[in-house]
Amino acid sequence: MEQAAIGIDIGGTDTVFGIVDRDGEIIAEGKISTRDYPVVEDFVEALALEIEKLLEPLNATYQVMGVGVGAPNANFYRGTIENAPNLAWKGIVPLAQLMGDRLRLPVCLTNDANAAAMGEIVYGGAKGMKDFVVITLGTGLGSGFVAGGQLVYGVDGIAGEMGHMTVIPNGRLCECGRKGCLETYVSATGFMRTVREMLVGDEDSELHHICPVEELEPAPVALAAEGGDQLAMAAFEQTADILGLAMANMVTITAPEVIFLFGGFVNAGPVLWEPVTEAFEKYLHPMYVGKVEIRISSLQYSNAAVLGSSALVWKA
Amino acid sequence: MEQAAIGIDIGGTDTVFGIVDRDGEIIAEGKISTRDYPVVEDFVEALALEIEKLLEPLNATYQVMGVGVGAPNANFYRGTIENAPNLAWKGIVPLAQLMGDRLRLPVCLTNDANAAAMGEIVYGGAKGMKDFVVITLGTGLGSGFVAGGQLVYGVDGIAGEMGHMTVIPNGRLCECGRKGCLETYVSATGFMRTVREMLVGDEDSELHHICPVEELEPAPVALAAEGGDQLAMAAFEQTADILGLAMANMVTITAPEVIFLFGGFVNAGPVLWEPVTEAFEKYLHPMYVGKVEIRISSLQYSNAAVLGSSALVWKA
Repeated sequence: MEQAAIGIDIGGTDTVFGIVDRDGEIIAEGKISTRDYPVVEDFVEALALEIEKLLEPLNATYQVMGVGVGAPNANFYRGTIENAPNLAWKGIVPLAQLMGDRLRLPVCLTNDANAAAMGEIVYGGAKGMKDFVVITLGTGLGSGFVAGGQLVYGVDGIAGEMGHMTVIPNGRLCECGRKGCLETYVSATGFMRTVREMLVGDEDSELHHICPVEELEPAPVALAAEGGDQLAMAAFEQTADILGLAMANMVTITAPEVIFLFGGFVNAGPVLWEPVTEAFEKYLHPMYVGKVEIRISSLQYSNAAVLGSSALVWKA
Repeated sequence: MEQAAIGIDIGGTDTVFGIVDRDGEIIAEGKISTRDYPVVEDFVEALALEIEKLLEPLNATYQVMGVGVGAPNANFYRGTIENAPNLAWKGIVPLAQLMGDRLRLPVCLTNDANAAAMGEIVYGGAKGMKDFVVITLGTGLGSGFVAGGQLVYGVDGIAGEMGHMTVIPNGRLCECGRKGCLETYVSATGFMRTVREMLVGDEDSELHHICPVEELEPAPVALAAEGGDQLAMAAFEQTADILGLAMANMVTITAPEVIFLFGGFVNAGPVLWEPVTEAFEKYLHPMYVGKVEIRISSLQYSNAAVLGSSALVWKA
């Protein structure tokens, strides 16, 4: 009988899940809306029913070893989601226990970026690597950090919230209530704030003609930048400069071999990566030059959330 | 026969060393001038002769287990000092090998802040602690970082150079050739740059009357701040604000239980610590509030360099 793990990625909008084998093959997968379940017990029940449906035809072939869950504001040690600003479940939610009781399987919970780091170790480009960082660029910015081969959880399991580094004191207001957090500039959301700010008072950019400004998304801005639109290029350069600085600062503490960039916003492509690499090299201390590499994650974005979460099971 | 370790701390000006027992008692100690030996082989010979003098009366009672060396720009994995801007020995210096060959003992080499972190684990306030950071504030600013009970060395053993975080893009020129590094603002040297900048155009501060401005040091400025001198207080507040921000940013990556502050500049006292704590709490993400503590190291500054380096031997 082959072994399999269940990987679940809880996002603010959707929750994706899958059954994954030892080689990182997704055998079956599904999705439910997170927003449809403002009561967490209802969410767990709905999710468990969907997972049981997926498992039914597989029960004869696979033995499920456990469940890995990636979620925002997850506390690895306690198995809880704590005061997540983008989820409806307020306070401290004992998600690992609720899922474990319902599915009768061991459950590991960590934040989504830590799950991505696990995915890199188990299935991705970080096999055998001892020191690396994963930065996830999506709606927000998350980070997972592996030192000496071990994921760094820190006190209470809450390390890896690089998105809340203050990069511009008294800068943009963040959802966390503070000002100038990295993710208010570097994330799909932060980037679009920059684009919109730049479009005010500008008349030349072709971005005015694609769709109403408030409906613009990173993909068409990337296309415009590739086509030479000055404002779109400047928006990527400004975003990249802030990310490059934050990454170089992070290196002074952690000295990783590789920084993996991962997530939907990375799909913007070379218009983002190239200025990020330039800014990173500009800000990097000479001691680290040539020793720390930036890589785009080789994990498929659409699968990686599920793969990363399932990887928690094999590492547990 | 009791066991002992040799601890050596190589600084830009002096090198201090001592024989330390298992309990952190310094049995014997000495000092030579680093600057007197522009050729590293001469330095190793002079240091070895002094250490042998110290050991002679102890050879009957103690068995020396090894040598721990703390030095700037040290590469733990290779046992080398690499391009240290404040030492006369240029390029890559194989110090561990030179010392080991001469003293016929195993030698461990790491940067001074990592040695201080080891000292905290073995003899200080971090006994049994899994996740903490040590920031050393002296002529420069160093950092050592322990995650999951292990000192983080990073790729090539060069993690922990927080002094070279860029805190003010295009800010003050640093010895490393870059601009705006943390230690150009937060260190005894950086602080005195701030004081001198503030004194230009100021007429009220009592600091004008202590000694020629270029001879001023942190201690009299601390006294003036305690006495209510506005400029002195403002200099500490500005320095503390930058350090508090850098510490809060570091927490988003590492989530330590405690940040230990250590080194000569910490002796400035509450005029420094109090605004540091305030700034740290102001910049800290709500998730970490009440979980991360700032502590002044309990290791005596005059002994800690030797203790920390000797601790490397017991941890090796």
